[in-house]
Amino acid sequence: MTATLSLINNSLQWCHPYLVATATEGENYGKALAVSLSLVSLSIYIFSRFFEEIAARLALPSVLGNLVAGVVIGVSGLHLVVLDGGEINPSLSHLIEILSNSTPEQVQAVFDGPVPLIIDEYAEFGVGVLLFLIGLESDLTELLKVGFQSASVAIVGVILPFVLGFMGLTYIFHVPTLPALFAGAALTATSIGITAKVMQDIGVLKSKEGQIILGAAILDDILGIVILAVVISIVDTGEVDVIKAAKLILIAATFMISAVVMNRFFASWFVTQLEKLKSPNRGMSYFILFILLSFIAGIIGLEPILGAFAAGLILGGTEARERLINGIGVLSVVFSTVFFVSIGAKTDLSVLNPSVPANQEGLIIAGFLIVVAIVGKVTAGFFAFSDEKINNLGIGTGMIPRGEVGLVFAGLGAATGALPPSIDVAIVLMVIGTTFLAPPLLRLVFDTSQSPETLVKSDPDGSV
Amino acid sequence: MTATLSLINNSLQWCHPYLVATATEGENYGKALAVSLSLVSLSIYIFSRFFEEIAARLALPSVLGNLVAGVVIGVSGLHLVVLDGGEINPSLSHLIEILSNSTPEQVQAVFDGPVPLIIDEYAEFGVGVLLFLIGLESDLTELLKVGFQSASVAIVGVILPFVLGFMGLTYIFHVPTLPALFAGAALTATSIGITAKVMQDIGVLKSKEGQIILGAAILDDILGIVILAVVISIVDTGEVDVIKAAKLILIAATFMISAVVMNRFFASWFVTQLEKLKSPNRGMSYFILFILLSFIAGIIGLEPILGAFAAGLILGGTEARERLINGIGVLSVVFSTVFFVSIGAKTDLSVLNPSVPANQEGLIIAGFLIVVAIVGKVTAGFFAFSDEKINNLGIGTGMIPRGEVGLVFAGLGAATGALPPSIDVAIVLMVIGTTFLAPPLLRLVFDTSQSPETLVKSDPDGSV
Repeated sequence: MTATLSLINNSLQWCHPYLVATATEGENYGKALAVSLSLVSLSIYIFSRFFEEIAARLALPSVLGNLVAGVVIGVSGLHLVVLDGGEINPSLSHLIEILSNSTPEQVQAVFDGPVPLIIDEYAEFGVGVLLFLIGLESDLTELLKVGFQSASVAIVGVILPFVLGFMGLTYIFHVPTLPALFAGAALTATSIGITAKVMQDIGVLKSKEGQIILGAAILDDILGIVILAVVISIVDTGEVDVIKAAKLILIAATFMISAVVMNRFFASWFVTQLEKLKSPNRGMSYFILFILLSFIAGIIGLEPILGAFAAGLILGGTEARERLINGIGVLSVVFSTVFFVSIGAKTDLSVLNPSVPANQEGLIIAGFLIVVAIVGKVTAGFFAFSDEKINNLGIGTGMIPRGEVGLVFAGLGAATGALPPSIDVAIVLMVIGTTFLAPPLLRLVFDTSQSPETLVKSDPDGSV
Repeated sequence: MTATLSLINNSLQWCHPYLVATATEGENYGKALAVSLSLVSLSIYIFSRFFEEIAARLALPSVLGNLVAGVVIGVSGLHLVVLDGGEINPSLSHLIEILSNSTPEQVQAVFDGPVPLIIDEYAEFGVGVLLFLIGLESDLTELLKVGFQSASVAIVGVILPFVLGFMGLTYIFHVPTLPALFAGAALTATSIGITAKVMQDIGVLKSKEGQIILGAAILDDILGIVILAVVISIVDTGEVDVIKAAKLILIAATFMISAVVMNRFFASWFVTQLEKLKSPNRGMSYFILFILLSFIAGIIGLEPILGAFAAGLILGGTEARERLINGIGVLSVVFSTVFFVSIGAKTDLSVLNPSVPANQEGLIIAGFLIVVAIVGKVTAGFFAFSDEKINNLGIGTGMIPRGEVGLVFAGLGAATGALPPSIDVAIVLMVIGTTFLAPPLLRLVFDTSQSPETLVKSDPDGSV
């Protein structure tokens, strides 16, 4: 890779005078920014495509490909996408200097300031749109149908890993309270996208077990996001304030119940009114609801992504749902790719080098989290009580992959500065581990002689 | 409006201690940025929706609504979206201070630096995606079918307004060469989107005249973009360098011809290869082509949007075309709205106040540009020679609306600093004027007793 960059550099150096027009210093800085953003974007998309394709051939979810791509091009790898002020790849810097006729200092300044700012904005927009989409896909009616079984699996599957993880980290590993809370919270949420995709791949999505898993994963996601909002608020105030936590749970519950009420009594009326509008872009009004609720969630002390999720949930019961899911699909893929790759790019794997004694704890914690992640969810599967014979082991196994929401925890946790690098990396490794382990484990516990289903569109955007 | 903001401010002030958690100064700056970006985004989308709806009810194109929305919320109006370092609305500043617990200086700093940077990035992304979409819609085969008639209308319709505008500004109004070039160039390109929409509205899109107009508008767009690239490069070097201009025309022609060749010989093979990939996000590879060609266009001295257009043109002849147009639709609307609104927001209409003697020239120039814009295109319509009886006046009138590409010229011209405010505003007024005048003029010259067509999807995104 570095050899290729050097080759490009040498070729460009040769024809340098022909390429670059004389320009002022300010223009060169602007051009350095434009060239840097283009090269960072190209790195993000080309590497994520490459590793997504490898993931697809290994029957693994694309989000893993994005994550690995980020690790490869980020601070733990090639240093092409450096978002935390570290040094960028010297060959890349040289390339940008030639293409924009700028100095190494200008290039480093561009990577210290505007590039991370803009990439982070794109990433935050991406995770917002992704949770808008997850909200749209979280059909309340579907959840009510699978009923109590999903609910008990979801609740046990949230409480057990959270408590086991938090207690284990606190009392066995003596991790401070805040990182232990983050790690515990990151253990809670099964990703609808990944779970649905894995079950679709092995052909069990439409079985009774598949429906219970899906219902539990939906509820799970809601609980996970509420927990995320609570944990982040606790981190923001710097201490565990029980009254504040209770207030936040109340606010979160009120906010989510309002979303449910709006889903039932407001959404259809809203959609009917919007469809009466004459403008060809009237659909943009749904987008305003997404921005507005993200904003309101932010100012009442919750995370903006909870508002994005609520906006999706509100519109999820209306006739606009399918069109929205299809319309938002590309937007979500384009920008959530930036989010997942940037999480990987920021992940400093060097803290896990086992030859450094201080790092050994990080690896051990990652191992501990993976065990808790699996044990917690598999146990929860046995709380799906049923009159019929039911594959409880299969249900629990289906809940194992954590995916997006776990990574959201890691990313936001790292952003708040509350997570020590070893815990941050342990969470990412837990997400990678559970997502890697789930497909083979699911094949073991389910009869996979059935042919794969193709009816469920878990990737509405994949067709573009 | 300001009264409403004050009311919100007063209410919030009252419950201030409950809303805002104690935070450090750096956190407040970060929160001020987040709150500012949310409020700016909400202003952009709410006002653009409102004026788009008014435009739709008056049977005018949505782009006009965006532009007017920008004028209303920008430096010429409410000062809610200030992108050039001006003072923001005091009530808005106060609201942001309360919501983010920050100082007026922090809010102003946020609007001086990161907010315009991020909004400009979104806007540039938007215009790139829009030209990717226009490229996708510019079917070469369709253009060849309408053949010589379209070509002669397009060529005369590009040369005549350019020469008339440039000469008139230079010799009558003594405008310097660079602004005169920009204004002349902005007079050249008919917008496919607006033209198609207007013709669809009055039901003449599928007539022989309609087909000729559409073909000429497509070619027109290509010629306009080449001219844009040439003019911008001339501006960048600070002088009219004939050899450099010729080189640029050669590069632009080579680039566009390569795109045509790739459209014919590479695109289908490329699409076939991509469809063999296993990843559900394989469609993202098309997106990489868009970023890559934008980047290459940028480094060989052309405008990135020319690369975006070429990427669209290359993929426009493949079976992926329809899916791409549908998939990119939402992306294009969401971000090009930011582009058009920000053009409006940056437009300083105060320079056109006729009570200031120095401004009178700007108004006169705007009037001159509108006359040249109409006369140039109507004359071009008579170059559509045909054996059959043909409505030449109708063809010329259909070419009148300038829209997106004209605004791209204005926006990029203002960004380079080459355009004096009066010429910038004159161009924007010319775009507004031609786009406003075209629908009633078209109703006059065509028999509009036909019912509106609904078969042509000029707004693939309008359904979401």
